Amino acid sequence: MAAASSSLLILHPRLTLFATTLRPLSLFTHHFSSTTPHHPNATGRSISLSSPPSDFAQKIDVNPPKGTRDFPPEDMRLRNWLFHNFREVSELFGFEEVDYPVLETESLYIRKAGEEIRDQLYCFEDKGNRRVALRPELTPSLARLVIQKGKSVPLPIKWFAIGQCWRYERMTRGRRREHYQWNMDIIGVPDVTGEAELISSIVTFFKRIGITAKDVGFKISSRKVLQEVLSLYSVPEASFAKACIIIDKMGKIPMEEIKKELKLVDLSNEAIEDLLQVLSMKSLTELEEKLGDAGEAVRELKQLFSLAEKFGYSEWIQFDASVVRGLAYYTGIVFEGFDREGKLRAICGGGRYDRLLSTFGGDDIPACGFGFGDAVIIELLKERQLIPEVPLEVENIVCSLDPDLQGAAATVATLLREKGQCVDLVLENKPLKWVFKRAARINARRLILVGKSEWERGMVSVKILSTGEQNQINLDDLQ
Amino acid sequence: MAAASSSLLILHPRLTLFATTLRPLSLFTHHFSSTTPHHPNATGRSISLSSPPSDFAQKIDVNPPKGTRDFPPEDMRLRNWLFHNFREVSELFGFEEVDYPVLETESLYIRKAGEEIRDQLYCFEDKGNRRVALRPELTPSLARLVIQKGKSVPLPIKWFAIGQCWRYERMTRGRRREHYQWNMDIIGVPDVTGEAELISSIVTFFKRIGITAKDVGFKISSRKVLQEVLSLYSVPEASFAKACIIIDKMGKIPMEEIKKELKLVDLSNEAIEDLLQVLSMKSLTELEEKLGDAGEAVRELKQLFSLAEKFGYSEWIQFDASVVRGLAYYTGIVFEGFDREGKLRAICGGGRYDRLLSTFGGDDIPACGFGFGDAVIIELLKERQLIPEVPLEVENIVCSLDPDLQGAAATVATLLREKGQCVDLVLENKPLKWVFKRAARINARRLILVGKSEWERGMVSVKILSTGEQNQINLDDLQ
Repeated sequence: MAAASSSLLILHPRLTLFATTLRPLSLFTHHFSSTTPHHPNATGRSISLSSPPSDFAQKIDVNPPKGTRDFPPEDMRLRNWLFHNFREVSELFGFEEVDYPVLETESLYIRKAGEEIRDQLYCFEDKGNRRVALRPELTPSLARLVIQKGKSVPLPIKWFAIGQCWRYERMTRGRRREHYQWNMDIIGVPDVTGEAELISSIVTFFKRIGITAKDVGFKISSRKVLQEVLSLYSVPEASFAKACIIIDKMGKIPMEEIKKELKLVDLSNEAIEDLLQVLSMKSLTELEEKLGDAGEAVRELKQLFSLAEKFGYSEWIQFDASVVRGLAYYTGIVFEGFDREGKLRAICGGGRYDRLLSTFGGDDIPACGFGFGDAVIIELLKERQLIPEVPLEVENIVCSLDPDLQGAAATVATLLREKGQCVDLVLENKPLKWVFKRAARINARRLILVGKSEWERGMVSVKILSTGEQNQINLDDLQ
Repeated sequence: MAAASSSLLILHPRLTLFATTLRPLSLFTHHFSSTTPHHPNATGRSISLSSPPSDFAQKIDVNPPKGTRDFPPEDMRLRNWLFHNFREVSELFGFEEVDYPVLETESLYIRKAGEEIRDQLYCFEDKGNRRVALRPELTPSLARLVIQKGKSVPLPIKWFAIGQCWRYERMTRGRRREHYQWNMDIIGVPDVTGEAELISSIVTFFKRIGITAKDVGFKISSRKVLQEVLSLYSVPEASFAKACIIIDKMGKIPMEEIKKELKLVDLSNEAIEDLLQVLSMKSLTELEEKLGDAGEAVRELKQLFSLAEKFGYSEWIQFDASVVRGLAYYTGIVFEGFDREGKLRAICGGGRYDRLLSTFGGDDIPACGFGFGDAVIIELLKERQLIPEVPLEVENIVCSLDPDLQGAAATVATLLREKGQCVDLVLENKPLKWVFKRAARINARRLILVGKSEWERGMVSVKILSTGEQNQINLDDLQ
């Protein structure tokens, strides 16, 4: 893994879920082989077309733009399966779905803490000379909408979203410029019951897709740990978010570099050494010895671990003071989901951000949330061989045995569809061999043949493809 | 309606589905009133927050960027309802879902026929100096992907997509810059059975959502009608697509302007007069008298009307030679769905585009498809008072009656969720009055109260909210 470590460790803020470097560019590689690999055109009628209209332009690159993906059917089925699970879990927890524009005003993302997300903003000037950006994350849009809605929405707000997010960076090596992110946020709950509920929903999601506490864990800490250490050294409040962003780079850039940057935001050598010592702690007892039991950091962390027991996911979580997350706006508990084998980047991440709204000119409301991307989880499912089979399945295939009966086949297809049956209607006059091939490819259960003599008697042939059983059935009895 | 006619008539190509001018900017206005209009914060615990970190920046505009939408929960439910119907109908017809990047290379959309879609391209230069565009339509991406996949995908391809599309234009008056478009495309079927199947799917969609043939119809023609007229006058082939785009503006700009533009693309006065006469035809018999029965235009149109009978949607369709559609790439049958009251712009539109692939450097494959936007259909449903009720519904609300039992409530919520029950867990210590209000807002069926004395006996109180019936139930018996 050494060769990949540099980009493996570059984090995308809130969560770190853009594609890794060791795999092909497409996240959703093809798990579904086609049963008819040959182009059936050869068996169909010949197609004569005149030359293209001279009106049209140049040859194009048939690949999607660098860093973006197409979703052909097999990839789309996997994406739908993933999103379906995101949605079902969110609804199990009583969250309501929302969405925001993929294109936002750039200023929504301008924060001064030196976040990677800011450096990698996919921004540009529109034709009206406005600075806009393809959203790099969903939380600022959420905050904007919450302020806009004001008192018309009763608290607590429990919203989820599944949205495409973008970043722009010049590096190559298969890193993508877009990904989808599942977010759940609770607005209006000051207690760590909020964070506990959020982690419970992610655990529920993992369990549903076959991931266990042996595969995945959550590292949990609180920004208040850092705050309480820094307050011992009278570090100016303005340095806090910046210090967090610097600390989040630990393990990605050399420790000497980290120390240098911390000095630049007014931390003394003594403060830095003390901070680094605290950040290495993996035990709440040890932390309590250092900070005492009067502070909020220890109290809230203890409360969260106690709630985790009641929710039933204690085995999934562990205290790790080194977790700070890469976004400036977190103020309290922070957490990230990690692969226990240590091969992958963070699977998801989140935390409390009680003061984001006031930075946008609104009144602060306590808030917490998480982001969960579509990239690392698919990597993990592949590693564990848990990628589900999601084949195409069209219940019926309807075909006329005579060109003159194309209309009759249409009538049969319509009749079945009106009864809620999915039908692939063969739209051309094709040999039966071709039809069987297609039936196999779409995993049809029944083949319905419209032949002349049966049709004249108001009947069709229905063949159950798994057994080969074939019957003539009256149109009126067709279900 | 006079005041709005200018922008009402400006068409967006493929289909004309961006918002009209007479309504508020948001397409999905709120049909779902909140039952708890008061901000419940007042009844909850007080929230103390320190001042915002000085790290953060300026006040922001809380509205989404001009021409874009947020989807708060009530709008998202309506969007999900609409998309769900798009999806179900597509699957009923055996189509597979696909998607493409929302950001594409600009050159994908550069056609020289003078289309409005080209003038309104939401394009810009990225940081790597590449010309990119937010997709204005989905068909060019489809063509790109079909060429890329080549012979690995057996024909016919039947794909659908629901994707956001963008345009940039400077006008205001409530027109939007983004909309969602449902596309269904058939690649590899040369016969009009393809078009007949597509129209059948749209009719099926209309029926599902309560729209009848009394509300909506389809105007159907063929680009071959124009081609056959123009061929009588030796009009150069290069003028064909341009002439179609000009003709598509009929009714939107003065007829004199149309004639002037047609002259500019090498049409004689005689050709123009003849063309305009043909374009006024509303009867296939009349067209046949003009063009004879040997040409493809008449033959294919007659075949389509005959198939429509077999599919069972004859009452929905009518021949109208004035329909040409606003995209350069159509080559045969073109159609558009229209509101019979004539108040709204086209609801959907599509047609055959047999020569698009070669313009991108691929081998041509016969193809047809349609686009159906999320704007005009919602307008129509409002007009007909057919907007569905899609309220938030969370089956259970779980609440502890004592701050010390917050963990117990979490245990109860987890237990229910593991059984597939949706649960809104009250995350703070709230008065019962507040809890009942919230239960009403989320349309909960059951209120589950975790009180001290019951909990000690392993029980909870379950109240059926519709009847007021309340029982103590053992945790093990809770379903």
